[in-house]
Amino acid sequence: MSRKEDPLKKYSKFFTEIAMNDECTPVLNTGLRGIDVASSKICDVRGKEGKLIYRGYLIEDLAENATFEEVCFLLLYERLPKKEELADFDASLKQKRHVPENVFAFLKSLPKTMNPMDVIQMAAPMLIQTDENAGSETLEHTLYSAENLIAGLGTIIAAWDRIRSNKTPVMPDNTLGHAANFLYMLTDETPETEVAGFFDAGLVLHAEHSFNASTFTARQVASTKAHIYAAISAAIGSLSGPLHGGANVRVMKMLMEINSEKNIAPYINKTLDSGGLIMGLGHAVYQTDDPRALILAPMCRRMGEIAGDTHWYELSKALEKKAKQAFKKHKNKDIFCNVDFYSASLFYAMGIAMDLFSPIFALSRVSGWCAHVMEEQFAMAAPKPSLYRPGATYVGEYCGPDECRFADIEKR
Amino acid sequence: MSRKEDPLKKYSKFFTEIAMNDECTPVLNTGLRGIDVASSKICDVRGKEGKLIYRGYLIEDLAENATFEEVCFLLLYERLPKKEELADFDASLKQKRHVPENVFAFLKSLPKTMNPMDVIQMAAPMLIQTDENAGSETLEHTLYSAENLIAGLGTIIAAWDRIRSNKTPVMPDNTLGHAANFLYMLTDETPETEVAGFFDAGLVLHAEHSFNASTFTARQVASTKAHIYAAISAAIGSLSGPLHGGANVRVMKMLMEINSEKNIAPYINKTLDSGGLIMGLGHAVYQTDDPRALILAPMCRRMGEIAGDTHWYELSKALEKKAKQAFKKHKNKDIFCNVDFYSASLFYAMGIAMDLFSPIFALSRVSGWCAHVMEEQFAMAAPKPSLYRPGATYVGEYCGPDECRFADIEKR
Repeated sequence: MSRKEDPLKKYSKFFTEIAMNDECTPVLNTGLRGIDVASSKICDVRGKEGKLIYRGYLIEDLAENATFEEVCFLLLYERLPKKEELADFDASLKQKRHVPENVFAFLKSLPKTMNPMDVIQMAAPMLIQTDENAGSETLEHTLYSAENLIAGLGTIIAAWDRIRSNKTPVMPDNTLGHAANFLYMLTDETPETEVAGFFDAGLVLHAEHSFNASTFTARQVASTKAHIYAAISAAIGSLSGPLHGGANVRVMKMLMEINSEKNIAPYINKTLDSGGLIMGLGHAVYQTDDPRALILAPMCRRMGEIAGDTHWYELSKALEKKAKQAFKKHKNKDIFCNVDFYSASLFYAMGIAMDLFSPIFALSRVSGWCAHVMEEQFAMAAPKPSLYRPGATYVGEYCGPDECRFADIEKR
Repeated sequence: MSRKEDPLKKYSKFFTEIAMNDECTPVLNTGLRGIDVASSKICDVRGKEGKLIYRGYLIEDLAENATFEEVCFLLLYERLPKKEELADFDASLKQKRHVPENVFAFLKSLPKTMNPMDVIQMAAPMLIQTDENAGSETLEHTLYSAENLIAGLGTIIAAWDRIRSNKTPVMPDNTLGHAANFLYMLTDETPETEVAGFFDAGLVLHAEHSFNASTFTARQVASTKAHIYAAISAAIGSLSGPLHGGANVRVMKMLMEINSEKNIAPYINKTLDSGGLIMGLGHAVYQTDDPRALILAPMCRRMGEIAGDTHWYELSKALEKKAKQAFKKHKNKDIFCNVDFYSASLFYAMGIAMDLFSPIFALSRVSGWCAHVMEEQFAMAAPKPSLYRPGATYVGEYCGPDECRFADIEKR
């Protein structure tokens, strides 16, 4: 049997074994559900009540009243900024939108088919080059680096989208806010105020959500006292996994597959019969409406009107209604939209490429990740820093008292 | 008060608060110590017995009898290779030593002072470019990618060390094994067989150590079904943290500070009096000799002889002896060398730059990381993949029933 065929068979055996072996009391991989690994002052997700709270503030208030920059300040500095503080912070972010020249050269050197999440995982740490105090990991310097990452990531994402389309990157326009400038760098056109406002609200809604997988990755890397660039790059890698990021892309693909209202009922039936999921419905934490979905739905409708195409919004709305009825009828269960359900067609109506949905998630969530990195490194209660190092139950070969005997290669 | 002064004060308040606040039952950040998060068949660390086991085999057997390539096969394919399988695997690794041209261009574009760990975190995922099946995350393809990462990382590290020193990168020599070829690419000289053997054994000794911080990072990223390049890049970021990697660098700096045997006793006394640590002594898991230290010590001595300077070995030996006596006398406690204690002067005697010690750790550990990524993605018992998503206890502002009221910016 050649090596090429061997591993799959080995692993399918492995797969069975690890489930069956009970001599060594294997631990089920429960993914740490329900285990609180830290105290945090950043975000509260109240699933039963459908409340999402950043630093004490309801997401509804923030989405309506605060810009993304203001929310970044809130997450990083633990309170809303005063007017002059926000102006100062805004100026600081604007200055940091400019990324080093070799970032563009790097992006130009990559195959144009490369996944944008891979690209930004590699390129984000390049921003360390503009960090004069790199190596001095004080709180003050880490705040500087956090701003550098928040500001620079947009430039990188927009530049990559243009470079892969054989267009010249657009340099930042510092008369524009964070959201509007990102859309400008993406399209080379100043967005309408209303559109920029929707995008800004989208960034606010995705900025933070407590200990999800990518945030935990960021904290875990930060817990080794690695610098914030290393932690954010790792978090981007975590978000690139289809079990974490990309859900709104799958919503959009589902909407395209359904395409017409007449196909909704058959699609739902087929999906429920096969035990499948309807993308964008249901959430691990919220047991009622995801507050972000309630905010996104009317924005999605209005964005459709602006774009001259409310088809996807209307299809989403009809799907939501029918899916809720079907779940109630067939599963005697209430189901609710999550954040991805309406963000899909919102971003789509803005003309954004679907494979940029996850990078845009990162563009927003980088603010929450940075707050968590700082909390992990500078604000934990433990008397000394304690990196995350869990255990594992060994269930491998010879987990009894004897080890394997090493055999000469000729005798294997 | 300007924003520049504000955050430090805010955070020092925060620091106190999070420790003091008991209304919301804050969770101490214990870093998941003692919590088994998965079953694993890869590695067993038996701290009491001082045994380190890869896939059933004792580290002593592997260090003496197996090459790093053989250990990589063992970790990835769950058993030692037969002769023809090893030849096949070896040929496959050799083919993958060649990295894309734009990797060198990227390295050349970076400031020469950049930390090598930052560089390899960014550059490792660039190897995805040579991965024809990128995007198809099957087990077979992931094994291909694992080989690609194991083989390519050495080329990247060596190229960076040369580029930052204004030297031309040396292309791989496929007549040499993995260890010898790395030293060749680093120095442009074929290493002596004995030296290459010591380096090879060093790679074997560092290849795997169960769920340490970087391995857990790799598994966590992999648990989202992100591809192996994203996971390995994140693990490198985790290893870059001074609480995780870099301990042997600190051993070497300590040896340089002590410098002479006459300074050992004062150094130990000063350190013990101030409650400090003697680098390279003590381990979180081993309660007896770290088996790797026992293997490294004679290699370190012999390497000193080859290099014509046994000073650091002798100083290490004397420090070990006196520190053990001092711990026994003053703390009534046995203390043992860990893997870093002798690897420091071993690598130093080979003429390797100290800031390459952590990258060399990664060069070795990438094999274990890859095995863990595959176990996480293809061999877990859970009926469906379960990404790591722990909880956190919210102890922030207004963790009672009321949220903060959003105030207009003029009124803050």
